[in-house]
Amino acid sequence: MGSSNPAQAAAPARRWDTRRQEKRRRLDAVRHLADGAVLPADRLAEALESLVVSGDRVVLEGNNQKQADFLARALVRVDPERVNRLHMIMPSVSLPEHLDLFERGIASKLDFAYAGAQSLRISQFLQDGTLQVGALHTYIELYARLYVDLAPNVVMVAGYKADRAGNLYTGPSTEDTPALVEAAAFRDGIVIAQVNQIVDDPQDLPRVDVPGSWIDFVVQSDKPFYIEPLFTRDPRLVKPVHVLMAMMAIRGVYERHQVQSLNHGIGFNTAAIELLLPTYGARLGLKNKICRNWTLNPHPTLIPAIESGWVESVYCFGAELGMEAYTAARPDIFFTGRDGSMRSNRAFCQLAGQYAVDLFIGSTLQMDGLGNSSTVTHGRLTGFGGAPNMGHDPHGRRHATPAWLDLVDGGTDGGGIDPLARGKKLVVQMVETFQDGTAPTIVESLDAVEVGKASGMPLAPIMIYGDDVTHVLTEEGIAYLYKARSLEERKAMLAAVAGVTPIGLRHDPAATARLRRDGLVALPEDIGVQRAEATRSLLAAKSIGELVDWSGGLYQPPAKFRSW
Amino acid sequence: MGSSNPAQAAAPARRWDTRRQEKRRRLDAVRHLADGAVLPADRLAEALESLVVSGDRVVLEGNNQKQADFLARALVRVDPERVNRLHMIMPSVSLPEHLDLFERGIASKLDFAYAGAQSLRISQFLQDGTLQVGALHTYIELYARLYVDLAPNVVMVAGYKADRAGNLYTGPSTEDTPALVEAAAFRDGIVIAQVNQIVDDPQDLPRVDVPGSWIDFVVQSDKPFYIEPLFTRDPRLVKPVHVLMAMMAIRGVYERHQVQSLNHGIGFNTAAIELLLPTYGARLGLKNKICRNWTLNPHPTLIPAIESGWVESVYCFGAELGMEAYTAARPDIFFTGRDGSMRSNRAFCQLAGQYAVDLFIGSTLQMDGLGNSSTVTHGRLTGFGGAPNMGHDPHGRRHATPAWLDLVDGGTDGGGIDPLARGKKLVVQMVETFQDGTAPTIVESLDAVEVGKASGMPLAPIMIYGDDVTHVLTEEGIAYLYKARSLEERKAMLAAVAGVTPIGLRHDPAATARLRRDGLVALPEDIGVQRAEATRSLLAAKSIGELVDWSGGLYQPPAKFRSW
Repeated sequence: MGSSNPAQAAAPARRWDTRRQEKRRRLDAVRHLADGAVLPADRLAEALESLVVSGDRVVLEGNNQKQADFLARALVRVDPERVNRLHMIMPSVSLPEHLDLFERGIASKLDFAYAGAQSLRISQFLQDGTLQVGALHTYIELYARLYVDLAPNVVMVAGYKADRAGNLYTGPSTEDTPALVEAAAFRDGIVIAQVNQIVDDPQDLPRVDVPGSWIDFVVQSDKPFYIEPLFTRDPRLVKPVHVLMAMMAIRGVYERHQVQSLNHGIGFNTAAIELLLPTYGARLGLKNKICRNWTLNPHPTLIPAIESGWVESVYCFGAELGMEAYTAARPDIFFTGRDGSMRSNRAFCQLAGQYAVDLFIGSTLQMDGLGNSSTVTHGRLTGFGGAPNMGHDPHGRRHATPAWLDLVDGGTDGGGIDPLARGKKLVVQMVETFQDGTAPTIVESLDAVEVGKASGMPLAPIMIYGDDVTHVLTEEGIAYLYKARSLEERKAMLAAVAGVTPIGLRHDPAATARLRRDGLVALPEDIGVQRAEATRSLLAAKSIGELVDWSGGLYQPPAKFRSW
Repeated sequence: MGSSNPAQAAAPARRWDTRRQEKRRRLDAVRHLADGAVLPADRLAEALESLVVSGDRVVLEGNNQKQADFLARALVRVDPERVNRLHMIMPSVSLPEHLDLFERGIASKLDFAYAGAQSLRISQFLQDGTLQVGALHTYIELYARLYVDLAPNVVMVAGYKADRAGNLYTGPSTEDTPALVEAAAFRDGIVIAQVNQIVDDPQDLPRVDVPGSWIDFVVQSDKPFYIEPLFTRDPRLVKPVHVLMAMMAIRGVYERHQVQSLNHGIGFNTAAIELLLPTYGARLGLKNKICRNWTLNPHPTLIPAIESGWVESVYCFGAELGMEAYTAARPDIFFTGRDGSMRSNRAFCQLAGQYAVDLFIGSTLQMDGLGNSSTVTHGRLTGFGGAPNMGHDPHGRRHATPAWLDLVDGGTDGGGIDPLARGKKLVVQMVETFQDGTAPTIVESLDAVEVGKASGMPLAPIMIYGDDVTHVLTEEGIAYLYKARSLEERKAMLAAVAGVTPIGLRHDPAATARLRRDGLVALPEDIGVQRAEATRSLLAAKSIGELVDWSGGLYQPPAKFRSW
C-alpha cells in the first residue's frame, strides 16, 4: 500500500459539490411558486429572479428557427438591480428581447453563433460598450464549449409539450435542444423548458425527446413558441441565371465527381439545383446515380425530387414551418419518431454534414481573389451558424467514397495514388459575380477584414477560408480550385470565372484557354451545358403553389408564401 | 395555384412507409415471445431470428469499453440458414463473438472504428474472404454515416437498468449508446437493449439516459455487461524517460502556449504529465494557469491533480472501471446526473475534443520523417477510434483562445497577425524514439502503407497525418513543426529530435544549432528542463495504491491492478 500523500494531508477540506448545493438552494427558493416541476406562467419572472443569479452563464434557445421566446420575454422583466452581468450563450440571436437583456443591464456578455435580424443592433451595442462579445462561434463549437469551459448555470429551451414530470416532446424542431439541455442537466445546472402545452397524463405525450430527469422546470407559454421559416425559397424568384448555374453544378460537379451525399445551403442557386433534378437531371440519366442522401432542413424545393424518387434519405438540422405533415407522411425519407412526427437534431446533423457527406455547396455575400468568403459586411456582425463546419474538409475523416477519392491531389486520373495522399470533401462556393447586378461579389478585400479590426476581434470573421474551397462556380464557369498547383494558378483560375468584377477584369483572357485546356476551368460549353436552355421552364415547380401540388397538399406553406 | 405536375400524375403510387411497415411486421412476429417491451433472456436467439433479417445493417455495441456482450452471444446462436449476410456496424470490435458472427456465416460485411484484441483475426478473415470491410472509420464518422447512408435496421446496445417501458439507465458508461440508438429510433429501425437489471417500478430507475419511446425491447442479461478498464495506467510502470518527456511537455508546450483545455491519450507519457502537475507543475507556479478543462476518460492518474485543485472540469468519452465512486463524489469536476452517477457521451466528447480544446497530445507506434503516424502494423488492422479526430486541426473552428492564437502562422511574436491567418489546435505527438529500446518508432516508411496495399484499401491507414502535427516531442527534444517554413525544414526539425533512429542518424548535427537558435527545435536545456531531475520521485503517485490513497479510498481499482 502506498503512503498517504503529504500534499493531501495538508490541504484544507474542500467541498466537491458546490454546484449541486447551489442548484439545490435555488430550487428550494422557488419551491413555493412551483407545482412540482411546473412553474406558473404568470409568476415566471419572479421565479427567474431566484433561479438566475448575477454573473451566471445562461443559455437561451435562440436557435436558427425555434425560439424560447416566452422565457426570453420573462427574463427581460427581471429586476436588473437583482439579476445582472449575465453571460448569455445563444446559438442564434434572433429576437429583439435577446438584445433588450443588454439594454436593460441584465446581461453584459454574449457568446453566439448567428445573428440575423439583430446583427446591426449587436454591432451598435458593441460600439456603445453595452455588450461584450466573448466569441463568434459556429453552432457545434458553441455546444462543445458548454462541456468544456463555458458550463452553463441555467439553460432555457422550448418544446411543444411536456408532462408534469418534465418529460419533453420537442416536435419536429428538436434542433439544438438536446445538446443544450445535456450540458446543464449533467453539471448541476438548472434546465427550464417552455412548452405550448403541459399534459396531465404522460401517455398524452407523443414521444419523449428529452427525459424528465434532465429537466427541472416546465412552464406553459402564453402562445406557441415563435418559429421562423428560414429555408423556404419561392421558386418564382429563381432566375434564369440560377438555372444556368444549377445546370453547371449538376454536370460539372455532381455528375463529374459522382456526388452521392450532400448538404445544400439556402440560396436560390441551390434551390434551383433541387428543382432541376427531376427535369434536367433525369434527362441526363442521373437518377439513382447522384444526390441520394441529404443532410439539410426540409426544403420545400426538395419536394419534387423526393416525389420523383431521387432521394433516399434526408436528415435535418431543424424543421421547416409548413413541412410538418409532409415530413410525417414520408417516413422512408425523413427521420421520424414512433409518434410519426419528424425529429431533427442540429448537433448530429452537423456531424453528418461534416463527416458523412461528399459535398457542401453554398453561397456567400463576398469572396476575395483567393476564395476566402464572408457574409459579414460593414455594420453587421452576423456570425456564420454552421457554414464554416459544412464548408471545410474534416481532416479527421478516414473512410473513402468515390467523390472524396476523386479529389485526391488532382484526382486519380493520372495514374496511381500516393498512399499518403488523402481524399477531400467537396466544398463548392456557388456565387453570381455581382449581387443584384451592382455590387461585385468577388472583391479585392473582404469587408470582414475591416469589421474584424473595428470590432477588436483577434482575427477577421471569415466564413469559409479559400484553402478549404475546392470549386468556385459562377455564371461564367467553374474553377476547379483543388487542382491548382500554386497560389498564383489558384488566383488565375478564380479570376477566370470572376466576370467583370475588378478581380475578373484583371485576368488575362489568353490564360483562360490554357486553364480550360488543362481542365482547371470549365465554361458551360466545356461541360455540355447549353446556355440557351437555361430558362425557368426547366424548373420542376415554378411557384409555391406547384410545390404544394407536388406534395399532394401535404405541404402547408406559411401565410407569407401563399400568394395564389 | 400552380398546375398539377404531369410527372407526378404519371408516377405509380409509391409507399412511403416501407421501413415502418417492415418494423411492424417484425415486432408482430415476436409479440408472442415478449412481455410488452421485455424479451425473455432464454428465448433471445429465437426472437433475434425474427427481429433480424438477412442482409440487414446491424449495429452491435461494441464500444471502446462497454460491450453488449449478451446480445452478441445470442446473435451468434441464430441459425445462419435463416439469418445471414448481415452488415455489422460496430464502433469497436472487441469480443471473440463479434468475429464468430463472420466465421458462422451470419455476417459478411463489417464497418468499424477500432479493433484491439481482435485486430489480428480481422486481418486473417479479410485475407480468407470470410469478411469484407466496408471502411475503417473514426467513431464520429461511423455515427455520422448512420444518419446518412448506413441507416441501421437493428441496433443492439447495453445499459445498467431499464424499466418495463424500455426507459434506459446506462450508468456512467453512457458512451456511444445515445448516438447509436437515435439513428434507429427515428428511422424505423429496431432498438434492443440488454440491461443488468429490469426494474418493475420506473421510480427505481436512477435516471433516464435514453427514453423508453426510443427503445423497442429490453432483455435482462445473464450477467452484467463486460467492460474493459482501458484507461488505467499503473504509475509503477512510468519510467524516468517518461518523467523527462513530461517535464518537457509541461515547460515547452503547456506553459509556453498557455494550454487551458486539453485531451490526453492513454500512454504512460501522458500519464506522467498528469502525475507531474501537482509536483513539478506546482513548483513552476502553473496551477490555475494551465490544464484546467479536460476532455478525457476518468484516468486514475488524474486523481492527484484533481485532489490538488488543478482541474476545473473533466468531460468524458466513457467511464473507467473502478472510478465510479470517485467520479460520483466529485460532481464539481465530473458530469453527473440528478442521481449522482456520472454520464459520459462519446459523441459530444468527440465534439468537445475537436472544437473546444487547445491541445491533443498522444502517442503512436510508428512515425515517419514527415510526422505521419499510425498504430497499424503488419498483420493487425486495428483502426484508430477517435485519434484522427482529436489529432487534427478542425478548420471549422472560429473562436480564439490564447494557445490557438499563439500558433497563427509562426506565432504572434514577430509583429502583427495577417487578418486572414488562422489559429491552430495544438496536435502533439509524444514518442520515445524506440519502442522497448529495440524497434525504432521513427521510421523511413510506415508499415501502414504496405498493410493498406495488402488489404486493398484505397489509401493507407494513417492515424494522424504529418501536416496536422504541430509538435513532436521525444526524449531528445521538441520539434515545433508548426513553425517550419518548408517541407525540408520540417524534415530536418523532426530528424533533430529523432535520436539514433535511421531518420535521426541522417540528420546533420550542425543543423541542430541553427534550428535551436531559431526556436524551431528545443532540447531540454533550452527550456529549463534538468535531465538529472527526471526521476520517479517527481511522480505525485508511484503506484495504484497511492492513487487509491489520494482518492481517500474512493477509487476502487479492478483486481488486476491490485498488487499491494
